[in-house]
Amino acid sequence: MSWDNPKIAIVGSGAVGSYYGCKLARDNRDVHFHMRSGYETVKQQGFEVRQDAESYYVHPAQVYRSTAQIGPCDVVIVALKATANGMLRELLSPLLKEDTLVLTLQNGLGNVEKIAAFVPAEQILGGLCFVCINRVRPGIIENYLPGQLFIAAYRGAPEDRVAQIVAIFQRAGVDCQHSSSLDASLWKKLCWNIPFNGLAIAGGGITTDVIVDSDPLVEMARALMEEIRAAARVMGHELSDGFLQKQLEVTRGMGAYRPSSLIDYLEGREVEVEAIFGEPLRRGEAAGVAMPTLRSLYCLLRHLVRCRE
Amino acid sequence: MSWDNPKIAIVGSGAVGSYYGCKLARDNRDVHFHMRSGYETVKQQGFEVRQDAESYYVHPAQVYRSTAQIGPCDVVIVALKATANGMLRELLSPLLKEDTLVLTLQNGLGNVEKIAAFVPAEQILGGLCFVCINRVRPGIIENYLPGQLFIAAYRGAPEDRVAQIVAIFQRAGVDCQHSSSLDASLWKKLCWNIPFNGLAIAGGGITTDVIVDSDPLVEMARALMEEIRAAARVMGHELSDGFLQKQLEVTRGMGAYRPSSLIDYLEGREVEVEAIFGEPLRRGEAAGVAMPTLRSLYCLLRHLVRCRE
Repeated sequence: MSWDNPKIAIVGSGAVGSYYGCKLARDNRDVHFHMRSGYETVKQQGFEVRQDAESYYVHPAQVYRSTAQIGPCDVVIVALKATANGMLRELLSPLLKEDTLVLTLQNGLGNVEKIAAFVPAEQILGGLCFVCINRVRPGIIENYLPGQLFIAAYRGAPEDRVAQIVAIFQRAGVDCQHSSSLDASLWKKLCWNIPFNGLAIAGGGITTDVIVDSDPLVEMARALMEEIRAAARVMGHELSDGFLQKQLEVTRGMGAYRPSSLIDYLEGREVEVEAIFGEPLRRGEAAGVAMPTLRSLYCLLRHLVRCRE
Repeated sequence: MSWDNPKIAIVGSGAVGSYYGCKLARDNRDVHFHMRSGYETVKQQGFEVRQDAESYYVHPAQVYRSTAQIGPCDVVIVALKATANGMLRELLSPLLKEDTLVLTLQNGLGNVEKIAAFVPAEQILGGLCFVCINRVRPGIIENYLPGQLFIAAYRGAPEDRVAQIVAIFQRAGVDCQHSSSLDASLWKKLCWNIPFNGLAIAGGGITTDVIVDSDPLVEMARALMEEIRAAARVMGHELSDGFLQKQLEVTRGMGAYRPSSLIDYLEGREVEVEAIFGEPLRRGEAAGVAMPTLRSLYCLLRHLVRCRE
């Protein structure tokens, strides 16, 4: 791997993939975006990243309809929706060489395991993005919160390689930290994703400001977080009261934010029900943790998502 | 009280009050309907009760805008929505004499207790209607299932008086039975009301056929019934597996039925959230029973009902 100028692929250039890819491209990294929708627009006009502090353009952007056109890379960043994980092997294979690092930024649980089916475990990293981003139109990304990115090795990745990836993001201006436990970070992120993605749909198609302003929904959000905390605890990860409380406080600062699952739901796209809700529920219950609030939410979401289809 | 020809008042002539009042009026009982909405229509055109077996009319019907115009009665049948219980004393007072029997057919828990604030406990009866009725327009009642009516004394009502009331309904063609425990009957009825009224709203405004056809919603309905059963058990009432299962089976026979709470919700009227969901939850939890699925549903309903307002 060439760390002076690593060749980087972004697989799944939605909101998250485009946002981080643009950050890296702007830092003159050699970034190749794989896109399914919006290809023509971005090919012609590049990306626009809008944010409070400053907006910027990435133009021209190196975009591709197929990963075969990109070829082997040093780093592959996976930002596909988890609902598309059935295509992972096909999409990633042309990008892999012996020492390619694969970093998944996907939501929910079960993604690293799916990648590990065809990539050596020690070449897999997971990243947790605590950030508010929406793709408002093809090629146009709005960022409402600079946020943080935590990167951790899946199993056995050499610490220095994780540190190198972290450094690449840091140099590009991302508040990126090396986390010592991917599993802990994943459960932490679920403390936001489960209540806010879930209640935005089950609450009738509402933005996060409506959730934090509703006493009954805050009560339910807290109950969900407590169940996630109980599951995380049996997995060996302690989440503090302060961390749970912070999820609500951070959300109050987000305004009328539409979580990604709500956007998918409203726009008729597949919702990441299994990765965000189903898999954590199954893992928690398999470990003997009662998660009845999450089970209720999961039942309602499965129904609502199917009903809409 | 004159049992040859008791004077009967129906307070709250919605679907349930109109349906049972019409049954009695058709049997030549002296029935006085108190109505808030639909008064003019029914005054002019009477009631029409539509059902598979036979439809019939009650015309002229003795309808009144105020209970003061009705005056003291032998039997007062309360079919008000529980959300209007704040008006109970004012509405019932003109109808009461020393030995008036008050029979409430209202949904949920807490109604008899509210009536007992101003009526001697031994004059109060509760009735549980297991029946599908909708008021499709003022004065027009559709009955999809003949159903059953269980009547029980609240506290200390002489058994012979309960038997007399039961006999009046039976003579009018109602499948009416004397239940030995009002509390047991109330909890039994919640096994239908909580899942089906609740999920019809939380499931996105759906009829009961959609609920029983949805695996995730049936799963949630069963979880709700199990919690109700656990609460009923600590109150001393055992509900059988067969009884729970029967709630689903009976519902499959109902077709695209709109539970009363769904109609209230869709038509912008107050929903009986506290009587049907809140009060059972509070009583169950106060007795040490975990009811997390009901608590989740209650949170969502409070939000959805408020959101709509």
